[in-house]
Amino acid sequence: MENRYDIAIIGSGPAGLSAAINAKIRNKSIILFGNKDLSSKLIKASKINNYLGFHDITGEQLKDNFQNHIEKFDINVTNERVNEIYSMGDYFALMVNEICYEAKSIVIATGIEYTKPISGEEEFLGRGVGYCATCDAPLYKDRIVTVIGYNKEAEEEANYVSELASKLYYIPMYEGNYNLRKNIEVVKDKPIEIIGDNKVEKLILKSKEIYTDGVFVLKDSISPAQLVPGLLMEEGHIKVDRSMKTNIKGCFAAGDCIGKPYQYMKAAGEGLVAALSAVSYLDSNNRY
Amino acid sequence: MENRYDIAIIGSGPAGLSAAINAKIRNKSIILFGNKDLSSKLIKASKINNYLGFHDITGEQLKDNFQNHIEKFDINVTNERVNEIYSMGDYFALMVNEICYEAKSIVIATGIEYTKPISGEEEFLGRGVGYCATCDAPLYKDRIVTVIGYNKEAEEEANYVSELASKLYYIPMYEGNYNLRKNIEVVKDKPIEIIGDNKVEKLILKSKEIYTDGVFVLKDSISPAQLVPGLLMEEGHIKVDRSMKTNIKGCFAAGDCIGKPYQYMKAAGEGLVAALSAVSYLDSNNRY
Ligand SMILES: Cc1cc2nc3c(=O)[nH]c(=O)nc-3n(C[C@H](O)[C@H](O)[C@H](O)COP(=O)(O)OP(=O)(O)OC[C@H]3O[C@@H](n4cnc5c(N)ncnc54)[C@H](O)[C@@H]3O)c2cc1C
Ligand SMILES: Cc1cc2nc3c(=O)[nH]c(=O)nc-3n(C[C@H](O)[C@H](O)[C@H](O)COP(=O)(O)OP(=O)(O)OC[C@H]3O[C@@H](n4cnc5c(N)ncnc54)[C@H](O)[C@@H]3O)c2cc1C
Repeated sequence: MENRYDIAIIGSGPAGLSAAINAKIRNKSIILFGNKDLSSKLIKASKINNYLGFHDITGEQLKDNFQNHIEKFDINVTNERVNEIYSMGDYFALMVNEICYEAKSIVIATGIEYTKPISGEEEFLGRGVGYCATCDAPLYKDRIVTVIGYNKEAEEEANYVSELASKLYYIPMYEGNYNLRKNIEVVKDKPIEIIGDNKVEKLILKSKEIYTDGVFVLKDSISPAQLVPGLLMEEGHIKVDRSMKTNIKGCFAAGDCIGKPYQYMKAAGEGLVAALSAVSYLDSNNRY
Repeated sequence: MENRYDIAIIGSGPAGLSAAINAKIRNKSIILFGNKDLSSKLIKASKINNYLGFHDITGEQLKDNFQNHIEKFDINVTNERVNEIYSMGDYFALMVNEICYEAKSIVIATGIEYTKPISGEEEFLGRGVGYCATCDAPLYKDRIVTVIGYNKEAEEEANYVSELASKLYYIPMYEGNYNLRKNIEVVKDKPIEIIGDNKVEKLILKSKEIYTDGVFVLKDSISPAQLVPGLLMEEGHIKVDRSMKTNIKGCFAAGDCIGKPYQYMKAAGEGLVAALSAVSYLDSNNRY
């Protein structure tokens, strides 16, 4: 099949990039999902001292070195968010908004979300709380929706949902110029709790309350167990063995999402191991 | 005690260097054993493509970047071979020729020896076969000794032993100008087998045989289980958990010596993890 990649890598931080380079060196066809800044945790770092080989470098500079490295291998970052991944036995189906990609194996390198969930967020998940606004938008036609956005990409999702919703509140969790449609109401306040009876009814903020039918919490990454149904977790991280294998055949993981310490060098080393494990998984399948 | 370091790191390849940098950042006193070229496996690489951040770099260049990085942290490589390490309960004693160093914790980052043992080598270990010529030299006063040297450092050991031995054969396993005492006989041949009755009697080479009382095999690294008596191995590698902890309290390991794939980036990532684990081991000890 034309559109089925050997390895899909989800995440363009050091773990995903190192996986991509090593998979490419082994002549595998890959697709790398992430964003054009590679990783917000990279560009936000003002000074990095512990990435062996680079002393006293800014996150931006290290990012430029990474970018240059992947470009030399003709690796492009597909600037899309993967919403859900299904294991289909001998391949994976990756849902990316309207498009479905296929891959024989996957490397999850989505990093970890440092921010704690809002009180009520987990309780109301699927009952008014969601993590993908574009996926669930049709459910909120002519209804009131609140988007809690942790990054600029959330603005696009908010704009899209606002075309259907009767009212859209946007709560930015970051500073900046918001590129939002005129009918969106920006609320600069701190979310405290999501409440309701059986489903979401109200969002309590530090200084006021909002009646709302839905709350989308749009962070840099969602929980891996949500991304890949059936994925085994252990104390908040994806459970892997030393070869970065998860409990799902053909699914490997690397970086912050598999455990502490949260560090670039650890992520990059694990990305390499995950890619080589995926390669040997593919090669052993091909032999039979 | 003045001379007791917080962390002794054995090995100056990417694993050891990454451990050293991260331990230093955490304000621990360290000693780093290795050699001035850092790692022969580094300087021998003609082209490295898969160390994220550096595209198409030679081993020499990558070494220079590493050297620059450790210098910025005032980290020196102690150019000595550690011969044996004993766990003394709450600290470790590191035997380095005549000197004994002490450290509260250790990180083993000695790499792995790619070369297979010579037939008979393991069988006669301790009965004529040895890995440290300077340590065992006194046993060979006025006797015939053969040194199989895999690197230039072996020449110094051979020179030292030749002062005591009645006869010394040097079998170089590398090309170069040998800096050896006049009384040493250089034999350019391939070792095939070590034989004897109860102890070493003869070394069989591809094109001749040598009567000898002792054979020293001087490679880049010795087996970790020999270096640290009691260390648990698993399929030829040091057994560690995900935090790089070995079976011995306060002893951590990283890099090629803990398993495949043998790669710089994996080694460097693990070195970081081992150092941070040693740091938290030290800090938790200090609390009580
Ligand atoms: C301000 C700051 C400073 C830091 N300083 C240091 C330091 O000095 N040294 C150090 O070692 N570490 C430092 N860290 C930690 C370091 O940033 C992380 O350990 C590292 O980035 C982890 O790499 P990763 O590849 O696992 O994940 P990340 O770098 O977090 O990358 C994950 C990527 O995956 C993408 N992604 C997530 N989900 C999806 C999806 N569903 N679809 C598509 N893409 C997705 C994300 O957008 C992101 O680009 C710092 C972190 C911060 C925030
Ligand atoms: C020719 C060649 C090309 C390679 N190319 C690549 C490549 O392109 N990409 C890649 O990722 N990997 C490559 N590798 C593999 C890579 O070199 C290793 O995986 C990496 O060096 C392992 O790092 P390490 O820190 O675990 O050990 P090493 O780099 O082997 O370092 C171990 C160090 O410990 C020292 N040591 C050992 N015992 C003692 C002791 N008792 N006392 C004191 N010091 C001691 C040694 O002298 C050495 O300096 C290559 C290897 C070779 C040989």
